[in-house]
Amino acid sequence: MINIFERTSLIRSGSITTEELNDAYGKGACECPSPNEQMLLVFSQERPFDLVELEQLLISVGWSQRPMRKVRSALDHSLLKVGLWKHDQRFPRLIGFARCTGDGVLEATVWDVAVNPIYQGLGLGKQLMDYVNKSLKDIGITRITLFADPGVVAFYLSQGWVLEPKGHRCAFWYAN
Amino acid sequence: MINIFERTSLIRSGSITTEELNDAYGKGACECPSPNEQMLLVFSQERPFDLVELEQLLISVGWSQRPMRKVRSALDHSLLKVGLWKHDQRFPRLIGFARCTGDGVLEATVWDVAVNPIYQGLGLGKQLMDYVNKSLKDIGITRITLFADPGVVAFYLSQGWVLEPKGHRCAFWYAN
Repeated sequence: MINIFERTSLIRSGSITTEELNDAYGKGACECPSPNEQMLLVFSQERPFDLVELEQLLISVGWSQRPMRKVRSALDHSLLKVGLWKHDQRFPRLIGFARCTGDGVLEATVWDVAVNPIYQGLGLGKQLMDYVNKSLKDIGITRITLFADPGVVAFYLSQGWVLEPKGHRCAFWYAN
Repeated sequence: MINIFERTSLIRSGSITTEELNDAYGKGACECPSPNEQMLLVFSQERPFDLVELEQLLISVGWSQRPMRKVRSALDHSLLKVGLWKHDQRFPRLIGFARCTGDGVLEATVWDVAVNPIYQGLGLGKQLMDYVNKSLKDIGITRITLFADPGVVAFYLSQGWVLEPKGHRCAFWYAN
């Protein structure tokens, strides 16, 4: 897997300082390689989400709406939540998202991966997943799992994900 | 799914009191229907695990060994951990185990389901999963996921689990 972060300068020359980045997006925020020199994109694990904006993003990629109260609690109890922001000094816009649950050591599962359709096809989904994988690897997790819709299986395979190794199957149980 | 708890008395008459059960196994501990009148089995979410005993149980069902430090941390950060204990006044024995990760609201994933081979074939695996599902349902989770080895897919299907609904696929990523 190509590490996109090694070939990218953290701060686009002149457009924003590290301090400004951290002020706006929290500690550890970093630049996401952008397909457009005029568009600064930022990964953040700390900038709080506007739940309405997050919900709109998730709905735009086809997730079904969920009670805001539950979403808030789910975020609070997620192992990792990543926002991909289109920088604006006054109104940064959330254009990508992913979160993980897990025990922080042995298991991590990725949920709710989304890139706003307007910004799809630019490689941002791959960069988002690279960032998620790298962040989980940094905290020592060596196996990550996810459930992929049929339409995005090829996307994950192209990034080095493995389908059902050793014949493992995934199963769901609905409490009804 | 039959609710096995409705047709079972919580306390086997005379063998142990609720207070003794809670003292030994923590708040909320409850009896697991036993195939043998002489054997009192208990589900507990609070009784601490001896990590060596837990590791031996997991290895006995074929999981590979993991660093004790990581297992401890993984347990600490699990949403739910269930021990199935064979009661003994001095030395309760861990004969079954399951744990879940998740956000406590929208997603829960079951890991490390194990019943000691000596006690397999008695319906305890089903009772353990019923207990896990019921516990998660009680905290409001409506969808549970797991990754099943090929050999136990039929076991989960027989309990009402659904394989890959809507064509969802599971994928794994290894950080190496």
